[in-house]
Amino acid sequence: MRRHFERDDLDLGALEMRIKAKVAYDGSAYFGYQSQSDVDNVQDRLEKALSVIHKRKTGVTASGRTDRGVHAKGQVIHFDTDLSLTSEQWLKAINANLPLDIRVLEAEAVPEGFHARFDVTGKRYDYYLSTREYDLFARNYITQYGYPLNLERMQDAAEAFLGTHDFTSFCSNTKEETPDQTRTIRRLEITEEDGIVHFVFEGDGFLRYMVRMIVGAILEAGREKMSREEIEEILAKRSKTVWRYKAPAEGLYLSEVTYKEQA
Amino acid sequence: MRRHFERDDLDLGALEMRIKAKVAYDGSAYFGYQSQSDVDNVQDRLEKALSVIHKRKTGVTASGRTDRGVHAKGQVIHFDTDLSLTSEQWLKAINANLPLDIRVLEAEAVPEGFHARFDVTGKRYDYYLSTREYDLFARNYITQYGYPLNLERMQDAAEAFLGTHDFTSFCSNTKEETPDQTRTIRRLEITEEDGIVHFVFEGDGFLRYMVRMIVGAILEAGREKMSREEIEEILAKRSKTVWRYKAPAEGLYLSEVTYKEQA
Repeated sequence: MRRHFERDDLDLGALEMRIKAKVAYDGSAYFGYQSQSDVDNVQDRLEKALSVIHKRKTGVTASGRTDRGVHAKGQVIHFDTDLSLTSEQWLKAINANLPLDIRVLEAEAVPEGFHARFDVTGKRYDYYLSTREYDLFARNYITQYGYPLNLERMQDAAEAFLGTHDFTSFCSNTKEETPDQTRTIRRLEITEEDGIVHFVFEGDGFLRYMVRMIVGAILEAGREKMSREEIEEILAKRSKTVWRYKAPAEGLYLSEVTYKEQA
Repeated sequence: MRRHFERDDLDLGALEMRIKAKVAYDGSAYFGYQSQSDVDNVQDRLEKALSVIHKRKTGVTASGRTDRGVHAKGQVIHFDTDLSLTSEQWLKAINANLPLDIRVLEAEAVPEGFHARFDVTGKRYDYYLSTREYDLFARNYITQYGYPLNLERMQDAAEAFLGTHDFTSFCSNTKEETPDQTRTIRRLEITEEDGIVHFVFEGDGFLRYMVRMIVGAILEAGREKMSREEIEEILAKRSKTVWRYKAPAEGLYLSEVTYKEQA
């Protein structure tokens, strides 16, 4: 009977299972999601927590990276384990080993074939920006923009990005890294309440800096410095040199990652 | 004519004037307001900014200190200057030399006799606490308490502190530092909205940790672990050993400092 064995005596291979977890983090203190030597990042923190729990080096795979200063309310990761814990036990165990600015919100066993990156069917990003007076208490969470914006012009400009486009002009990935830079934006909504402008992006996938470069262009439209037609021209050029302004990281949140239904 | 002189040629003594300034800061990154060697603090940052502007060491005097992690929306300081700048020029000059988590909000010339500490007639502190699920994005600004609280019991307990009392039991100042620990709390209101509990304190002055130790006691009442009568007994004991729990720093804001009318 299993309880008579010490963990080390078990045939671990037979018990291995895959866990999918939803993770939130305040990106303010991190050099982005992805592991990099010598700088603090979210992936290393998660792997360190899981390695403590497993008493051996344990890696995680995420839906994708987020850049320095970008937040997440719904990043998704997977990892493999030989431990049998309930969802609640996973949350307690991992969160007890994480700093307070990274939290695991959900954890569940998934079929072995599940992959946090390859199985993504969509992502949602939110971007928040304030046109009000500088608020130092919100500075890491809402971009303190401070200029008036024409909401209607922004909403009009946003339509230029809806649908399927080659986003070469609005991302920083090289063609070597990512030969096909065609993506589909299914939803791009912009609302405003009390001077806080809120962007919602939903699509099949987003390239590096894509959301922030698009927000940057929409802001230029909102300040009446650029027209929708000019934005459409830049998009049509499919060039890395025509658009460089990206909105700051602190207003951006990876809110949700969606996956195909698991059989 | 003045503009023909270099600044160093002027008779600076004759031009000296006192500036009163209102300062806001996010206390998260600082070891409190007051200057201390080897740790980052708000006072050193302000003095460094003013010293750059004046090209010589310039000190500031505040209404009082705030502790590590405590925020301010309305700290008041004064400093003496030989520069003739408008309020707007002061804000621009000082803020250009401060980190983004400290901002000077107002600056005005005041009579030479004004003193930011000695002339204080009252202070207002606000304390925010959440009984909701842990919110990592609010963790530095709203205490993430996470337990249900009985608001009526808290409001009742708060009345024990209203008026003039010897607050020896609810502060950490020694009798050597502060022989008279009698203070008057003119207002202590507690409201709740969507699980966020908001305390307002107004009084003639507050001793070290006084607001946080009072909030701590009121929270015990709110959790029905202590009665108003027990709180009144602790207050009446005037002892440094009967009450030790202080609410965390991150929910506390120095919101306003008031002064007697200037003649």
